[in-house]
Amino acid sequence: MTKINIGLIGYGTVGSGVVKFLSNRKSFIKNKFNTEFTIRTLCDLKLPKKNTRGLGRTRLTKKVQDVLDDPKIDIVIELIGGLHPAKEIVVKALNQGKHVITANKALIANSGKELFRMAKKQNCHLYFESSVGAGTPIIKTITEGIVGNKFNSIYGIINGTCNFILSEMTQRNYSVAQALTEAQKKGFAESNPTLDINGMDSVHKLAILVYLTFGKFIDVNDIYREGITHISHDDIEHATSLGLSIKLLAIAKKEDKNIEVRVHPTLISKNHPLASINSIYNAVYMNTDPLGSVLLSGEGAGQMAAASGVISDLINFASRGNNSALPCNRYSEASGLKIKKIDQIKTKFYIRFMVTDKPGILSVITGILGKHGIGINSVTQKAHNPTSTVPVIMLTDYTSEKMLRLALNKIHKLPVVKSKPVAIRMEKLW
Amino acid sequence: MTKINIGLIGYGTVGSGVVKFLSNRKSFIKNKFNTEFTIRTLCDLKLPKKNTRGLGRTRLTKKVQDVLDDPKIDIVIELIGGLHPAKEIVVKALNQGKHVITANKALIANSGKELFRMAKKQNCHLYFESSVGAGTPIIKTITEGIVGNKFNSIYGIINGTCNFILSEMTQRNYSVAQALTEAQKKGFAESNPTLDINGMDSVHKLAILVYLTFGKFIDVNDIYREGITHISHDDIEHATSLGLSIKLLAIAKKEDKNIEVRVHPTLISKNHPLASINSIYNAVYMNTDPLGSVLLSGEGAGQMAAASGVISDLINFASRGNNSALPCNRYSEASGLKIKKIDQIKTKFYIRFMVTDKPGILSVITGILGKHGIGINSVTQKAHNPTSTVPVIMLTDYTSEKMLRLALNKIHKLPVVKSKPVAIRMEKLW
Repeated sequence: MTKINIGLIGYGTVGSGVVKFLSNRKSFIKNKFNTEFTIRTLCDLKLPKKNTRGLGRTRLTKKVQDVLDDPKIDIVIELIGGLHPAKEIVVKALNQGKHVITANKALIANSGKELFRMAKKQNCHLYFESSVGAGTPIIKTITEGIVGNKFNSIYGIINGTCNFILSEMTQRNYSVAQALTEAQKKGFAESNPTLDINGMDSVHKLAILVYLTFGKFIDVNDIYREGITHISHDDIEHATSLGLSIKLLAIAKKEDKNIEVRVHPTLISKNHPLASINSIYNAVYMNTDPLGSVLLSGEGAGQMAAASGVISDLINFASRGNNSALPCNRYSEASGLKIKKIDQIKTKFYIRFMVTDKPGILSVITGILGKHGIGINSVTQKAHNPTSTVPVIMLTDYTSEKMLRLALNKIHKLPVVKSKPVAIRMEKLW
Repeated sequence: MTKINIGLIGYGTVGSGVVKFLSNRKSFIKNKFNTEFTIRTLCDLKLPKKNTRGLGRTRLTKKVQDVLDDPKIDIVIELIGGLHPAKEIVVKALNQGKHVITANKALIANSGKELFRMAKKQNCHLYFESSVGAGTPIIKTITEGIVGNKFNSIYGIINGTCNFILSEMTQRNYSVAQALTEAQKKGFAESNPTLDINGMDSVHKLAILVYLTFGKFIDVNDIYREGITHISHDDIEHATSLGLSIKLLAIAKKEDKNIEVRVHPTLISKNHPLASINSIYNAVYMNTDPLGSVLLSGEGAGQMAAASGVISDLINFASRGNNSALPCNRYSEASGLKIKKIDQIKTKFYIRFMVTDKPGILSVITGILGKHGIGINSVTQKAHNPTSTVPVIMLTDYTSEKMLRLALNKIHKLPVVKSKPVAIRMEKLW
């Protein structure tokens, strides 16, 4: 029987999920993996009021040093989140020769390079499966499951809150605000959901995926970011009638030495499998060579989903032993990769103009688009009403961001255009 | 630099794909994994006419003993397929203390239990990622990615040929025969596709998945099997109009100590992600506890897709070393599991009757169904034509196979029912 002593730092939602999971599956893990996990010490500034199930003999402490200095602790699970003091704790744990499991996306996105080097030097493992997609094994799939393949592109739905909001807006005619309230009621959004709906959470996770697939740690500030607050139910409805679904996608593409990295609301064909990934589910869709397209989806948030990733890391640590380097910690920087500026990127666009319904207007608008080299694939004007403004929807061909922005600014200034034109990027995923 | 010597047995489509992959990614593997793979010996009854790229210094032989007896060979890749002599070769390799990679689903489905025991005894690893879903890492996801979870059910599209045929039938109004011809033209079906379209290939793969998820090796003959040859384009069209998609699903469910295991054409909601998995793509959709639903999809056949799984196995072997037990080789039989007979299983059904279009017929048919305890959720009769037969489509509530069969036999004998009633099972996957 292998015995592994755990130091658990952070007893919030995920931490208590880990305790519950280990307690529920104790005999299964013993029988199948011949391994016994013991939470030797639990460190949290707010200690649990009573010893809950699974914490019988666990030492409770508020001092992180009680975990880090204990030579009997084999592996530290860091679940406090945020960059500090999580980083200092992980650094000290590795320096003490302890293996580490973390679910901390900000930590890996910002300091992964440094931490993996330190882990290697110390002959330790740093596991982080739950940092992207919670227990859905995205990290393992990329670093072990399809290892050896080249990665050409990744499209990720990696924020459950946003996916829930956009799904509710599509299915229930909600506004962003209404859907957010619903998400909070159901426990699918934080009381302060800013980092989720402004796309920052997806940016952190995309940075991790870019390192794992393209071999480059990028500054999170170099990832173009647009959240979902400006998405209106009207646009979702127009897009649906054109066979399109809206998702907050985290996108990374590589062509030769150029990579593009961006997070923004995106319209995709409703026939693509990603369009069926709704509610709090996360998914990544990757184009690889030579394997082709791979899709992985599962719950991307929630207590037990996140705990599940931590447990997989624990069992994998136990079954791997510490003799060999952990695949997801191997890092060799791909040389010469350049990040494209958003202005250089070409995509197709959905555009909505609110215009006074007069003959000749389409000709003026398409004329301005044409002068900026923007081709139009379709134009739809559903309503006609000479006394009010009506929406005109256009789908463009591939066009550069820069030219589109210039053209939309000009069109916005036309007296017949009554509000700021709406532009949403489209992606063809096949 | 870790140096690993390979003995490759079988130089067909997948074998030559492996050689090509290793040659193309040689420097990537060297740089990232500090590992050099050398195909030391290639054994095939039909030797390659010339030394192709990647086979420069490889010893070519027709004698399998040249691989098995060579102490310098670390790992044997078996790619000849079929049960014999593949089994004898793998047994001998393990007995010589060599690690083994195989893509052989029949071998693992029929002899996995024995081979895993032998691997354990010999302190060797037996990798088989490509045996299910080719390079799509289904085995690794189950045994490492979401390890620790309980598995409640699996729904797999695990035969690319059948999925291609059903997709073509749906999208192009083809018959099974026309779609099969198309599949053969495109290289997506064998010249003898019997084992694919009669469901046997899916049965083998399902047996492997059942062992990995429920912990029981079952006799492949205990898996209920129905192929796709009786599916007509008419039924696909009727089902589509009811919001349903048809897939050949491999299904395993567990409730307490009872498991059901079956492979048959299945109607599912077109809104479910599995419904968007078309053409030669494979997918598994698993309900787990506590993680919830997980979907994994990718190309399930083809030279490079299968080679990709073998390469992942190779790199994982190199990075794991042979110090620790391989998770997918761990086997502890779950006690007391019983396989339900197909007669005991309850599902919903799509039924089509071809009847003479006379008033009162629905009442007779629904009367017989009612007497057998079969509830009807919807009845559709689209065409009315008193001079010819017309289709009547019914969707039933949950009903036992046995009662349905009895009822359909009775209905078939009615003079107004002009051909054998068609029944296709439906599954609610959410």
